Amino acid sequence: MVRELADYERALTEVVATEEHLRRTLFAEPPAVFGHVAEAADGRLAGMAVWFLNYSTWLGTHNVYLEDLYVRPDFRGAGVGGQLLRTLAAICVDRGYDRLEWWVLDWNESARAFYASIGAQALTEWIPYRVTGAALRRLAGEVVTSG
Amino acid sequence: MVRELADYERALTEVVATEEHLRRTLFAEPPAVFGHVAEAADGRLAGMAVWFLNYSTWLGTHNVYLEDLYVRPDFRGAGVGGQLLRTLAAICVDRGYDRLEWWVLDWNESARAFYASIGAQALTEWIPYRVTGAALRRLAGEVVTSG
Repeated sequence: MVRELADYERALTEVVATEEHLRRTLFAEPPAVFGHVAEAADGRLAGMAVWFLNYSTWLGTHNVYLEDLYVRPDFRGAGVGGQLLRTLAAICVDRGYDRLEWWVLDWNESARAFYASIGAQALTEWIPYRVTGAALRRLAGEVVTSG
Repeated sequence: MVRELADYERALTEVVATEEHLRRTLFAEPPAVFGHVAEAADGRLAGMAVWFLNYSTWLGTHNVYLEDLYVRPDFRGAGVGGQLLRTLAAICVDRGYDRLEWWVLDWNESARAFYASIGAQALTEWIPYRVTGAALRRLAGEVVTSG
């Protein structure tokens, strides 16, 4: 499903993780990442939510960051995505985390309308930044870490 | 310094964390969050980087997410921010993480120019979303989690 979602997001070539990577990180101690799957009555997998704990210095607590939310085409429009989001919201409330966060592609209008309908805010004043690949190695090469 | 940065970001009223929250989460086992401080030759604290491990399903690994990067006014323009970023980049490279990520406020032109200069990309196609407060509790209230 990770690959199906990346394909939908027009980024399949960016997926380098294998099943073994995911297995190792889901079942590490402590886990690097958590997942919920939604199962249809006939046992087929309808969708998934992959998430991890992030942190806010303003709140001084963990929060839940939703890395991937995916509903398979056969099951769309049946409330599966909402059910997965409600499950994560309940985890937040149970544990005293005040934020459930994720990123959305700007062209994904149907997703954005859905997120607005459940009370999510688009944090359009914040822009994600990333250093990766050669730029990351170049940056790292300028210092020996003692951290 | 968390409060000084929030003040600069015009969001001081959003800081509800106390020193005790930060102490507890920095020194938890495993820690919820990590920090580096930059110290001047005379022992004064010049700046800090607060960061945690996030995760990518595309890479199948942890990455470093930089929650707060802050340099005190007296020490700006002296390369402290770059030194902190290079330290985190070196942690990424040492551990095989291919991404160092953070968010920037869209009006913070000086920060954005600096990040561009070290090879960071602005991921302007991704928009952060958040459910918080009453909306989060409302969403959670619609299901009993079994996750």
